[in-house]
Amino acid sequence: MKEINRIGVFTSGGDSPGMNAAIRAVVRTALYKNKQVTGIYHGYQGMMDGDFIPMESRSVSNIIQLGGTILKTARCLPFRTVEGRAQAYKNLVEAGIDGLVAIGGDGTFTGAEIFSREYDIPVVCIPGTIDNDLYGTDYTLGYDTATNTVIEAIDKIRDTAASHDRLFFIEVMGRDSGCIALNAGIAGGAEAILLPEKATAIDDLIQHLSKGARQQKSSSIVIVAEGDHNGGAYNVAKRVKEKFSHYDAKVSILGHLQRGGSPSSFDRVLASRMGYAAVNQLIAGNTRIMIGMRGNEICTTPLEEAINNKEYKLSEDMLEIAEVLSL
Amino acid sequence: MKEINRIGVFTSGGDSPGMNAAIRAVVRTALYKNKQVTGIYHGYQGMMDGDFIPMESRSVSNIIQLGGTILKTARCLPFRTVEGRAQAYKNLVEAGIDGLVAIGGDGTFTGAEIFSREYDIPVVCIPGTIDNDLYGTDYTLGYDTATNTVIEAIDKIRDTAASHDRLFFIEVMGRDSGCIALNAGIAGGAEAILLPEKATAIDDLIQHLSKGARQQKSSSIVIVAEGDHNGGAYNVAKRVKEKFSHYDAKVSILGHLQRGGSPSSFDRVLASRMGYAAVNQLIAGNTRIMIGMRGNEICTTPLEEAINNKEYKLSEDMLEIAEVLSL
Amino acid sequence: MKEINRIGVFTSGGDSPGMNAAIRAVVRTALYKNKQVTGIYHGYQGMMDGDFIPMESRSVSNIIQLGGTILKTARCLPFRTVEGRAQAYKNLVEAGIDGLVAIGGDGTFTGAEIFSREYDIPVVCIPGTIDNDLYGTDYTLGYDTATNTVIEAIDKIRDTAASHDRLFFIEVMGRDSGCIALNAGIAGGAEAILLPEKATAIDDLIQHLSKGARQQKSSSIVIVAEGDHNGGAYNVAKRVKEKFSHYDAKVSILGHLQRGGSPSSFDRVLASRMGYAAVNQLIAGNTRIMIGMRGNEICTTPLEEAINNKEYKLSEDMLEIAEVLSL
Amino acid sequence: MKEINRIGVFTSGGDSPGMNAAIRAVVRTALYKNKQVTGIYHGYQGMMDGDFIPMESRSVSNIIQLGGTILKTARCLPFRTVEGRAQAYKNLVEAGIDGLVAIGGDGTFTGAEIFSREYDIPVVCIPGTIDNDLYGTDYTLGYDTATNTVIEAIDKIRDTAASHDRLFFIEVMGRDSGCIALNAGIAGGAEAILLPEKATAIDDLIQHLSKGARQQKSSSIVIVAEGDHNGGAYNVAKRVKEKFSHYDAKVSILGHLQRGGSPSSFDRVLASRMGYAAVNQLIAGNTRIMIGMRGNEICTTPLEEAINNKEYKLSEDMLEIAEVLSL
Repeated sequence: MKEINRIGVFTSGGDSPGMNAAIRAVVRTALYKNKQVTGIYHGYQGMMDGDFIPMESRSVSNIIQLGGTILKTARCLPFRTVEGRAQAYKNLVEAGIDGLVAIGGDGTFTGAEIFSREYDIPVVCIPGTIDNDLYGTDYTLGYDTATNTVIEAIDKIRDTAASHDRLFFIEVMGRDSGCIALNAGIAGGAEAILLPEKATAIDDLIQHLSKGARQQKSSSIVIVAEGDHNGGAYNVAKRVKEKFSHYDAKVSILGHLQRGGSPSSFDRVLASRMGYAAVNQLIAGNTRIMIGMRGNEICTTPLEEAINNKEYKLSEDMLEIAEVLSL
Repeated sequence: MKEINRIGVFTSGGDSPGMNAAIRAVVRTALYKNKQVTGIYHGYQGMMDGDFIPMESRSVSNIIQLGGTILKTARCLPFRTVEGRAQAYKNLVEAGIDGLVAIGGDGTFTGAEIFSREYDIPVVCIPGTIDNDLYGTDYTLGYDTATNTVIEAIDKIRDTAASHDRLFFIEVMGRDSGCIALNAGIAGGAEAILLPEKATAIDDLIQHLSKGARQQKSSSIVIVAEGDHNGGAYNVAKRVKEKFSHYDAKVSILGHLQRGGSPSSFDRVLASRMGYAAVNQLIAGNTRIMIGMRGNEICTTPLEEAINNKEYKLSEDMLEIAEVLSL
Repeated sequence: MKEINRIGVFTSGGDSPGMNAAIRAVVRTALYKNKQVTGIYHGYQGMMDGDFIPMESRSVSNIIQLGGTILKTARCLPFRTVEGRAQAYKNLVEAGIDGLVAIGGDGTFTGAEIFSREYDIPVVCIPGTIDNDLYGTDYTLGYDTATNTVIEAIDKIRDTAASHDRLFFIEVMGRDSGCIALNAGIAGGAEAILLPEKATAIDDLIQHLSKGARQQKSSSIVIVAEGDHNGGAYNVAKRVKEKFSHYDAKVSILGHLQRGGSPSSFDRVLASRMGYAAVNQLIAGNTRIMIGMRGNEICTTPLEEAINNKEYKLSEDMLEIAEVLSL
Repeated sequence: MKEINRIGVFTSGGDSPGMNAAIRAVVRTALYKNKQVTGIYHGYQGMMDGDFIPMESRSVSNIIQLGGTILKTARCLPFRTVEGRAQAYKNLVEAGIDGLVAIGGDGTFTGAEIFSREYDIPVVCIPGTIDNDLYGTDYTLGYDTATNTVIEAIDKIRDTAASHDRLFFIEVMGRDSGCIALNAGIAGGAEAILLPEKATAIDDLIQHLSKGARQQKSSSIVIVAEGDHNGGAYNVAKRVKEKFSHYDAKVSILGHLQRGGSPSSFDRVLASRMGYAAVNQLIAGNTRIMIGMRGNEICTTPLEEAINNKEYKLSEDMLEIAEVLSL
């Protein structure tokens, strides 16, 4: 096992709240352990471009509360080529970087896994994505914040829905994962939740809404995950309106505001713990692992497993709770 | 001048944050002046249906901070008929209501003006709409809160925009009025603002964005009012993307969340002052007026004037400020 | 095992955000299972006074987002007497209540345990307290919200601290438990955290702050839990100021605002799951248990154990993280 | 009239939300008018120390939403000496600064007035203080944000107050000015408001609270401005408790969190307009003036007048509204 002297840290893929808190934890833990740290801008793109910056303790002052990522992020196709990775490795060597902490999602991990094997450079990953769909951790960075952002929007919309006897369709993020939709739907008191993991027939939805209307519900909110089988909130609304006219119907597409915002306390603590653990794992000689949290404990999973497994985080219980509490 | 004994209060048209604070002020001021108060549900609809509730001081406890309206609201077509208004008047007489405070916008005022003349029942109006487009007042109830809601969304989107070098088109409310778009655009540091009051050529917009890109801006946010001449944010985004590919472009439609939420301090104080003034004006024998605020002073405008005039609240200065500060 | 027909639900002790969401879940789950529900006001006090209200599905509409508790709460000494409990039981029998769900903390559980044994009435408890200091659950209702409230305050104070080169002492809740202080301190990027569980010598604190000052930190924030050994933030500030004058020092006592506010998504989901589980446990014939959450799973603990055990939720790791990341 | 080539901008005295938005507006407007800009750190202290930084358009990117001030601030005694000001002027000349924009309060204006006369350097001031107690403007920068911060705290405290039948004393900023206390008190639905401008006898307060208790109010909130004659919230609470025991009483001291936080839309627009106006006034050859806003219009006031006049912003109407609506 080679000793690590300089750790490179970067964020890659879609950004999520808490990435800055994780960068701060990586930098300060590394310095505390007498390692040097280099920030790599724009993820793999910056690695290929040599877009680096040395980081000190003050480089990460007053960033724990900021959304986004001070190191910027990008999706990078050229890194998928042999030439791209060769150039990246050359730059790392020149900068004296001999260990990496990567913060991102699925795509980031795949790049890290390949690169680390190819060039025998140790890498530890931190799961940063609002979708909470990675294997090996109960929570990913940014998921808690995003869910809070969604329920604040639902709360505001409920004010106007309840004043007007209206039906609202709110589209939330989640192409493959209904985690935000299900949890924000329960927390927002939604009347129905449409998920990618489970097809909902429009007729069943209409029947459910009709039942609520008969029970004197003065308004209804339907949460639709981006990846729902009916094709998003506009399509669902259109098809419901054709057959169900009890309420006036409106659509809201929350969009990218779900990715931003100051991270919640939960995400900041999670980021701090994961950043701290990532550096310690790297120093201990571990590589190609993802840091996770199970219960209240930090744990690790081999990248290979994290990439190739899906974790179904929607329990049957939760689906039933959503159903029962919406009545 | 007939003495007033029982005041009917209602909200009508689109809801806006601060309506509850205004209801509270009307109820408590009236009780303080030894008048009775009846709440009328669902605006003119409830007046026609006799959907009334007597209100005491405790009826409006703990509502000053709530969005929406506890008296519900509606848009009501039948009130435009002679028969509808006759039924409404009959109900008011039966309930002993001999004065009205109406909270709403343009349409609400028109109904109030006609009804008050027809049946000689005194009515005082409070301007409640997030659009801030009424004549006779610097501010309408809900506008300040809605603008704060929009900038919170912009702030979140900027986090992710800045992390990704992206271009965002954010659609905000305002079919005829660019007041929210212009003020939230300035407050949110938007690169461009598209308003109903002023046509923006797509080519000019692209030129402006290109200039920003040349000046190393890492991201850009364009605010589009609903009523912009180019047909909303999706259309603007589509047309910009055809010719300008410097950034990846995304669209966010904020929608009805702009109508909800706990009112800001400004809106709560404004509502309290207006509700207090409305009751005092009614008791003093005034009718067919709208309460407004000019500078820091409460003032009144005849309804007729308020309905027939438009106030252009977008100064040339503000348009220049938006332009200059976005560079 | 006797079948349950009518469930009584109440909140008791200090209130915490999420209690309303739990009440809603209890009511709706019970109705779904064809049970009747009665709300008991003011906890044990209302049980003794017969201050009851029958609850329907619409009784808990639009409350999931509200802080506090619609059933009110109280601390009740007379319930500790045999006579008090006899009166309470008499009232329950008269109202047809044959099962109880109690939402509260330590004191609530003790009352429930005694009462349930004495009168053989089944009771299931839900842990509601911001302190997160109960045995048998990773999280108590309200803790996540309270921690978010604290970091929002810290974020605001850091703005002014950083602009002025100032030192702030912020006192947060926690007489016996440092859970809020430690987590909010890490999440808020505090320079030092003083906890009830661990005595901090003022001289060590001064040394730590001096080190930060030497490293060009422009401001410092010290979190002090109420139950810290030095006697609260005012005393700590006074003693630090005597020996350390590098910064101007200010004190903030956050106080009861930490108990209020709209619950976070985490707390609303937790409350929904716990309320749902409590009713199901009661119906299944279980009694004298507390509902908890371990990892992502709902679990139960006998009340006796929950009352008599303390769970030390401050890991050594977390204490080291707080230390390392503050540099 | 000498043409201005390089504008120096600084913040001084207590910080307030919106200062960064004003700095941004000053910098970008100046650049747009082809002037150079230099930032001066720590107010007059930095002027004396030559702590300067040249500012470009990108220097003020992404700061409009930040609380505090990126140029830092300080209270500076040495600037009151002839030698201090001579040194400051020498530094300005060396840096080529020939015009100043000062953002701050009373003390800042006094320094600016003296310095500008002594060395014939033009200076325009922007009123930045949360207290809203300056002559010549309806609103000062930061006041709107601070009031919103206070009502968010009141809303949270009301949740717990209403759940417990409690009486809360909340101390807010305002040594000489009751503007925050009165407006936040009205907006927060407080039962009583104690102001520096008007002595409140404790017996009268108790009588008022007793009346509310008799009217079935379940809780009460009393706002106490720092500068109230009874000596702050702790003292008021102590004296009330001696004679009035209907409720359990608690105290909250909000402290410096009132100075921080992301500025409201109102404050950001105000800051943008004031910064824009300040530069234009300076270029137009005006000096020793303060920018203000009356109604919706930007205006100017000679510094001398602004310093020597007090504006009584608490109308009798507002005091009566506070009284009437609290019943």
